[in-house]
Order: sequence, then structure tokens, then C-alpha cells
Amino acid sequence: MKRAYLEKMPLAQAQARWFSALEQAGCFDARSETIPTAEAFERITAVAVHALRPVPHVRAAAMDGIAVRADQTAGARLDQPLVLRKDVDFVQVDTGDPISQGFDAVIMLEDLDFPSPGTAECRKAAFPGQNVRPVGEDFPKGQTILPARTRLSPEAIAACLGSGNLALEVIRRPKVFVLPTGAELVSPLEPIPAGKYPETNTALFAGYLKRWQALPTMHPLLEDDYAQIRRAIESSLQEHDLLLVNAGTSKGREDFTTSIIEELGQLIVHGVSMHPGHPLVLGLAQGKPIVGVPGYPVATWVVLDQFVLPFLERYYGCALQPRTTVVARLARRVHSPLGEVEFVRVRLEQTEEGWIAHPLAGKASTLSSLIHADGLLVVPEELGGCAQGELVEVRLLK
Amino acid sequence: MKRAYLEKMPLAQAQARWFSALEQAGCFDARSETIPTAEAFERITAVAVHALRPVPHVRAAAMDGIAVRADQTAGARLDQPLVLRKDVDFVQVDTGDPISQGFDAVIMLEDLDFPSPGTAECRKAAFPGQNVRPVGEDFPKGQTILPARTRLSPEAIAACLGSGNLALEVIRRPKVFVLPTGAELVSPLEPIPAGKYPETNTALFAGYLKRWQALPTMHPLLEDDYAQIRRAIESSLQEHDLLLVNAGTSKGREDFTTSIIEELGQLIVHGVSMHPGHPLVLGLAQGKPIVGVPGYPVATWVVLDQFVLPFLERYYGCALQPRTTVVARLARRVHSPLGEVEFVRVRLEQTEEGWIAHPLAGKASTLSSLIHADGLLVVPEELGGCAQGELVEVRLLK
Repeated sequence: MKRAYLEKMPLAQAQARWFSALEQAGCFDARSETIPTAEAFERITAVAVHALRPVPHVRAAAMDGIAVRADQTAGARLDQPLVLRKDVDFVQVDTGDPISQGFDAVIMLEDLDFPSPGTAECRKAAFPGQNVRPVGEDFPKGQTILPARTRLSPEAIAACLGSGNLALEVIRRPKVFVLPTGAELVSPLEPIPAGKYPETNTALFAGYLKRWQALPTMHPLLEDDYAQIRRAIESSLQEHDLLLVNAGTSKGREDFTTSIIEELGQLIVHGVSMHPGHPLVLGLAQGKPIVGVPGYPVATWVVLDQFVLPFLERYYGCALQPRTTVVARLARRVHSPLGEVEFVRVRLEQTEEGWIAHPLAGKASTLSSLIHADGLLVVPEELGGCAQGELVEVRLLK
Repeated sequence: MKRAYLEKMPLAQAQARWFSALEQAGCFDARSETIPTAEAFERITAVAVHALRPVPHVRAAAMDGIAVRADQTAGARLDQPLVLRKDVDFVQVDTGDPISQGFDAVIMLEDLDFPSPGTAECRKAAFPGQNVRPVGEDFPKGQTILPARTRLSPEAIAACLGSGNLALEVIRRPKVFVLPTGAELVSPLEPIPAGKYPETNTALFAGYLKRWQALPTMHPLLEDDYAQIRRAIESSLQEHDLLLVNAGTSKGREDFTTSIIEELGQLIVHGVSMHPGHPLVLGLAQGKPIVGVPGYPVATWVVLDQFVLPFLERYYGCALQPRTTVVARLARRVHSPLGEVEFVRVRLEQTEEGWIAHPLAGKASTLSSLIHADGLLVVPEELGGCAQGELVEVRLLK
């Protein structure tokens, strides 16, 4: 009976169905919080940020020199220099110094002589505003500094602070619950008993979730005990924005995730026509998305890439990872079953004729194929593969 | 006398001279530390990491099914199925389960019938190793998992943990001292008195240094007091790997950085023929690099990009930031003085004819020109600019 669920839904359909259910359930209605700007680096704005004061808020010297009244320098010429008196006709200023009331131009040091202490000789008339940064040159008051849903770069933080925004309303980081399961597994930090394997997917989840601005909660490893797993999921629904159960998604004896999702909520997808990552489970319970993530590390990675990252980007309303592609020539033929999206890890080689993509041999079970990959070639379901020498689009992974 | 130092050294020569002095002074002899692998995400390996045990370290089922002795299934055919007894001729296994001693093949569920409890009917002979992950499939024992000087990705952390590397020798994070100076400045967190400006470059330094895996120490803002600034630099030399003084690099009254560097050590460069960022100071004191960073935010950014990032990459021995470029058509002419490298911020527009680069108008004083920039066009010193419609290489900044 359980077997019937493991279908082969096209990837795009699985994504559309799940994200549309999540949208309806309000999973992307991100909440915000207000935090000190100095602590907001890499966070994402919830609302647009405007200049609370102009930047600069007073006029400033744009050069090292002297501040003068422009009209007072009228007529100064190389052959008819004008002598100005310190602290009467001019004040000395460095770049960045405010221009006092009354003065309206700066003559740079290079254009001056200082014939005696307390005097400056000017050889060219200054014009009003010369070498002066006007008020609001960088940002006029009220100007939008950043739109909503923008990741805060160092220069954005600096501009917010400079314009009087000492606190910022940012999107609350989504809390992601990660539950590793499997009787054959044991924490890699403990001695490995006979017949057990170290559990290492937790490290994959932790790293990518941190990189994508989520807050992971790592549950300790659970054996394949239905009641325990169900209890752990049920008690974590309220506090989290996304739940990832790894693994327990296939058709084996101990694949509880689908049943638990059905008991607690709604099973939306079980089985996606992609490789690796086919036995994927997507559900929704008490308004919270649950993903049953297949256990092979490359399958886990594909689900992170194809479902978790897009979930987080929809939640935040902005891109969290660049998706740069290059066109490369395929070094050898790649096979891919018709009707299935194949994620091929490739090594890239730069040659005089352009990029060459070398498909990596590793199976879904091998972390090495991910570590050695420079890029990803996605073979769509309508193709049975790609020919040797074919030009393909490769997404950069490094 | 001080003015004589502000020269116009070509950018490449300034970089070569400073980095070569730093190399000789041992500034790139990075020290390492050993930390728990689970805490090493994004850190950089100091030495190569090898598999301390094979991965997997015992044979594992690659499919859900039953583990059998392959020779015992010889002769099984569709028309002549073989009945196997549970726990005698086979054991049931899920993907990832270890294969017990004696068994050497896995028959997948799909190829079996279960005519009665405790029996399985096999319709095809299995071969030794069928659907079995051999020992060391991912990493044989002793295999290099990562070379030295590699940034630790999530999959790298997972592979290290899986292969028994519970601690890793990583490069110690460089400590970078940041000293903001300027009598005209005040912390942006305090009320801004008349005639003062909020100091915001600290936020630029903090963000980029964190992004590039350095540990910044932010000194409180100092006024232009020679003795105070000298004391702050001198007392920080021993504890830090790089010192950044901002600003105090031009020819104004209060440009102390050059004098202090000369007193404490060696002034290597003062003035680089680039814009923004010309009045840059590069020195070395007690074996520690010191940079006098010009105060305009875009100048600060250029120095971070052209000197601080390459310093950190030499220290770490690996790239810390991707440098992806696109070829774009210039929307309007860009002027650049001959003999000076010009850093032009551009907005990129994707059209059917390819990328269009729109040069941004902002001066060196405007953070807005950095915030709005998608890319950077570097006009080399031998060119007086780039023509409208010219194809130029633009480095992506976002």
C-alpha cells in the first residue's frame, strides 16, 4: 500500500505543487524583527530603508585647502593674486571638514601660495560650490537607500548608519528543524560500533542552512522508531518554519516519514522523477512544510538545491546564492533516463577553445563527487543524455 | 617635505613592491590551529586531509532488498525461480545497511516475490558485489580528501567527519586592527554634534573582513592627535597581522600615518596612480603590514579590493572571493586620466543583444555609487577612457 505513493512526478510539477500549497498556507509570510544596524550584516531588509537625514547633512570640503567666500575672490588672476587673511577671509580645511557658515567654496592647496603666516595668496577666482560636497550629495533626506528584501552588504550597512538608520527592520531568520534518522547510523563524533556508519548529512544541512541565512536546530540522531520520530516532528512543528527529516523516504521497512506526514497533515509529493533524489517526500502539517530528504549525500544535496534553497528564497523574497553559468563542451557522453532530470557533477577545465566539462563518475552515495565538482549539468527529462562534444550550460558550484 | 612622498606609483608596481616586502618579512607565513571539524565550516585547511578510515568502512546495501550469497542464486531464472529462506539464505536490508559477513550481493525489492512469510523468491541470479557499496567506494583509506589551503564547504566537513577526521588543522584567522581617525568624525551611534559627520567606514571594514575570514579589532574613533594615534598603532603591532588606519593619508594638516609608519618602520608606498584611492600609504613595521586607507568610502573600498583582499588571499593561500566577469557594451563614454587606473562602478542591464554597462555618476565620496553598482570596470592606466559602444570586461560585484 505504501508503495503506491512512490511516484515519478516531474520535477517542475513537484516544485509547483509544493510551493503553491506552501504559498496558500502562508509559509512565505515572513515575519520581521528590528535589530541594531551594526548587527545586520548579511541580513535581509523587511521594508525599504530611507535616509532619515541627508548625507552629508552639512556641506563638507571635498579637497584639502582653504574655505573662502567665492564672491570675495572675484578678479583674482595669476598676474593679479589676491591676498586673503586667515580666520577672516578663509579657514584652513582638510577633505571632509564641514564648511562653516558664510564660506561657500574651497580652493585646493595646489592652487595657493602662503607668502607669510596668516595669509594665503589665491591666483584664480573661485566659484560658489567649488570643491564643496553639497548637502545630500550621497543621499538626499528621504531618499530610498535600499529596497525591501535586500541583503545587507557592508556598504549598505555603512549607508544606513550614515543616514541615521541605527536600527533596521529585517526578515526574521527562518528556523529549520533537522532530524537525522537511521538505525544503521551513529554520530561521527562517537566510536563507530560494528555494523554502523557515521552520520554525516547533518554537516551538509548545517553548512548550507547557515550559508543561506537560516537558523538550523539539529535534533540528535534517532533510530528507526516510529513513535519517537513522530513525537520529535510533532513537538517541533510550532517552533519551526521548515522541517527536514533525513532519511526514511524510500520503500524500505523503516520509511516512516510519509506515514507521519499523512497522520499529521497532508502528503503533497512522494517521488520526483529526478536523479539523485528520487524518493523525496514533500508535505505540509499544521501550516509547516516538511521534507523527507533521501539519505544519499548527493541526493540530500540535490534536495537542498532544488527545494530548500528555493523555499528560503521565497521566504526571504530575494536570491540567496548566485547562479552563474558557463557554456562548456562535454568531454564525454552523459546518459540520462528519458523522463528523469539528471544532476551531473562535472569538473571544468579551461582551455584555449573554452570550457571543457568532464562528467564525474561518482554515484549518489559519494561525497567525493560533490567535493571534486566545479559545476553542475542538469539534463532535462525530455533528453536521454548529452552527446560527447555537445555544448552544454554548466552552473558553477565554486 | 612631507609632500614629496605623495607620488603616483603605478598600481601593479605598488602591489608588487608591498607584497614582496611582506613576503620577505614573513607576513604570509600563516600559522595554524587545530579545531573540531564540526566548527571548521568556511575555515581554510592548513594541511591536506586524508581518510583515516575508508568510506564506507564496511560494505553497505546500495538498494532496499535482501542480502544474499551470489553463488547460491546461480541458475535462478524467471521460469525457474529460487526460493530463499529468511535469516538463513538471506537477510532483509534497507539502503545503507551494512552487509553481514557471508553475504555479498543485494537483490532489490522490485525483483523479488514474497510467496509466504519467511521466504523470498528470486528470479534472476545475482552477481558478487551486485547493489553493494564496496569498502572505500567514496574514499579509500589514506586517500586525500582535501588539499591544503582549501576552504571547507559543507560537503568537505561531511567527508572529513565520515572519514574519521574529527579535528582539522586550519589556518589561524588573521587579526586585523582597524583604527578610524578624524577630528571631524563621530560614532554614528552617538548624537551628531554641529560640524561633525558620522564615521561609517568602520562598517565597510567590518563587513568585508568578516566576509574574507579575517578577525577585525575595531579601535574606537580617535581625533587627529599624533601621540594618541601613534600609541594606538604601536601597541597593536604585536597582536595583529594587518593594521588599517583610516584616514590620514593625504597632504592635509593632519596626515600622520606616513610619519608614524616612518618612525615605527618602513614607508613602502605613498601615492598610487589609481582613482579613487590615490593617497594610499603602504608600510611595514616590526614585521607587520600597515595600510593608511584614504577616507572616501569608494577609495576605502578600492583599497580593500586591491590590497586587503590580495593580502588575505596570500596569507591564506587560496581565493576568498569569486571574480566572475562578463563582457558588456558600454552605454556611454568613460573618461579616465592617462597614467591612472580608474575604477568605474557600473549598473548592468541584460538585453537581447547581451549585457549593457551603464557607468554610475557617483564620486569617490558616495556610498550610493557602490550600493547601486552591479559591476566594476577597471580602465587601465595606458587608456584615456573607453568609448561609447565599446565591449569591456566588467567584474560582477553582486
